[in-house]
Amino acid sequence: MIPFVSRIGSAEQTVWINQLSAAMPDEVILPFSALTLEQRQECDIAIVANPNPDDLLALPSLKWVHSVWAGVERMINELASPTFSIVRLVDPMLAKTMSEAVLAWTLFLHRDMPAYAKQQSEGYWCPRPMVEAKNRRIGLLGLGALGQVSAQRLVDNGFTVAGWSRSEKQIEGVQCFSGEDGLITLLSQSDLLVCLLPLTTQTQHLLNLQNLSYLPKGASLINFARGAIVDDKALLTLLDQGHLSHAVLDVFMQEPLPIEHPYWGHQSVTVLPHISAPTHPVSASQIVASNVQHYRLTNCIPSAVDPMRGY
Amino acid sequence: MIPFVSRIGSAEQTVWINQLSAAMPDEVILPFSALTLEQRQECDIAIVANPNPDDLLALPSLKWVHSVWAGVERMINELASPTFSIVRLVDPMLAKTMSEAVLAWTLFLHRDMPAYAKQQSEGYWCPRPMVEAKNRRIGLLGLGALGQVSAQRLVDNGFTVAGWSRSEKQIEGVQCFSGEDGLITLLSQSDLLVCLLPLTTQTQHLLNLQNLSYLPKGASLINFARGAIVDDKALLTLLDQGHLSHAVLDVFMQEPLPIEHPYWGHQSVTVLPHISAPTHPVSASQIVASNVQHYRLTNCIPSAVDPMRGY
Repeated sequence: MIPFVSRIGSAEQTVWINQLSAAMPDEVILPFSALTLEQRQECDIAIVANPNPDDLLALPSLKWVHSVWAGVERMINELASPTFSIVRLVDPMLAKTMSEAVLAWTLFLHRDMPAYAKQQSEGYWCPRPMVEAKNRRIGLLGLGALGQVSAQRLVDNGFTVAGWSRSEKQIEGVQCFSGEDGLITLLSQSDLLVCLLPLTTQTQHLLNLQNLSYLPKGASLINFARGAIVDDKALLTLLDQGHLSHAVLDVFMQEPLPIEHPYWGHQSVTVLPHISAPTHPVSASQIVASNVQHYRLTNCIPSAVDPMRGY
Repeated sequence: MIPFVSRIGSAEQTVWINQLSAAMPDEVILPFSALTLEQRQECDIAIVANPNPDDLLALPSLKWVHSVWAGVERMINELASPTFSIVRLVDPMLAKTMSEAVLAWTLFLHRDMPAYAKQQSEGYWCPRPMVEAKNRRIGLLGLGALGQVSAQRLVDNGFTVAGWSRSEKQIEGVQCFSGEDGLITLLSQSDLLVCLLPLTTQTQHLLNLQNLSYLPKGASLINFARGAIVDDKALLTLLDQGHLSHAVLDVFMQEPLPIEHPYWGHQSVTVLPHISAPTHPVSASQIVASNVQHYRLTNCIPSAVDPMRGY
């Protein structure tokens, strides 16, 4: 018996419970609200999607929880020092979807789609100078599971790609940087900056006025990570000054993005409703099931999130 | 001495003459207007970009002309039965640029960018259902140099790709059709139709009301070939009826697209100013030079356009 602990809508919860049950037919997956008091005492694993921390604290035997999402920063913040491990979703399918989004919106900016949309609205016919992909320098922040697949996809499609991560990485065909100096170097040579970092105390407002100013004049930003990594005021200032030419934002401090937010109507901002890489319940359920089955056989908890590191 | 015969702007002509001269330093490349009467009598090759037919007819010794563009339908129409051969540009660089454009605007439609732009303009936050690339069926019309590279690029990026061409082709990973029945089959199974056909008497208005109606409800069209292949009235009808959901058009019957044309303001049409695959003067000049040098050595005219076939 495994509880599904979540604050997502009931329709979405039903989809997840059905998919998880199909992926591990030997287990009984129940919504948290359906547990008896006795079941609450017993359960050692929970599967979670934006859980209420009080619900998790009501499960005294809990050894570990498996998030069906890749980002777990909210859970870490809300559970000061949990007695159980937190396992986040690492889904190759998610990395594939994210790399497709990175490529799609990179090409959107590379092929000047925002400018051509504006020209169309003005009835203005004007071919713009064409830049070869190899002369378009893409800087990727974050070289974890999502970043590595995205970097490879951009290289395969002809772009010049560099990346930055907390710890040093080596990826063929990608110039890799780490550390504070590395960040400044990466920023200063990126025509297009793509953010795929986890949100941690270190990355919060990492893209502030100073760091965004290192980008070359006319550069663009894609944020597919978390809204709090970007200082919104700084970004708007640099867009309005023309130092940055465009921002594609899929994530925001508050979601849905409040209707009064200046991003909505800004001609240099593309607002997306957090759609770059939605979790795929079928493939995610198979990964969760495989981790649960491995634990049942070996008693080994899958590789967990480091609460200090934050991911 | 080789004349450059064109009706393009003088700035653009200067770029071409400089690049061509650099690519074949043993030849003297002159604008047509700079030729003496004696030089006109002598010249056996001309390099052309949208030439005035009268200029070409003023060159009595002409054996062949090399177009720096891939599309030569206008020249064929204007020169009823020329006494010289017409060689068109087949540039791998052009195929690469075109395949990038095909991928870019395929992803634009695949990832619902027109719908998200509309939602942004309305301040409306709503994630749309995500379709996996393998479940998005792309139909390519034209499997020549441009079509083959584009098909491969789409396959490499996870799409399900089928293609149609006049003569039967075989491409790994691509379901290939030919003939009239093949066209109907291809159309009826294409969620996204990409047109890369040459303009010939056979392909003029090939995408008429009947043929476009074979596309499944909700399908989209990308036309990167020639405007005259699409029946504009039929396309507008099908967009307005909701049978087709979007069209990305880079080419038109008349270019620049006249300001009063309904495409400009149509919310289901993306108008581009003929930018999908601009000829790259550096790489094109090298290809032209190589063909000219081969002719000087061997007296062999490069593989020419078949005026009956039209390309």
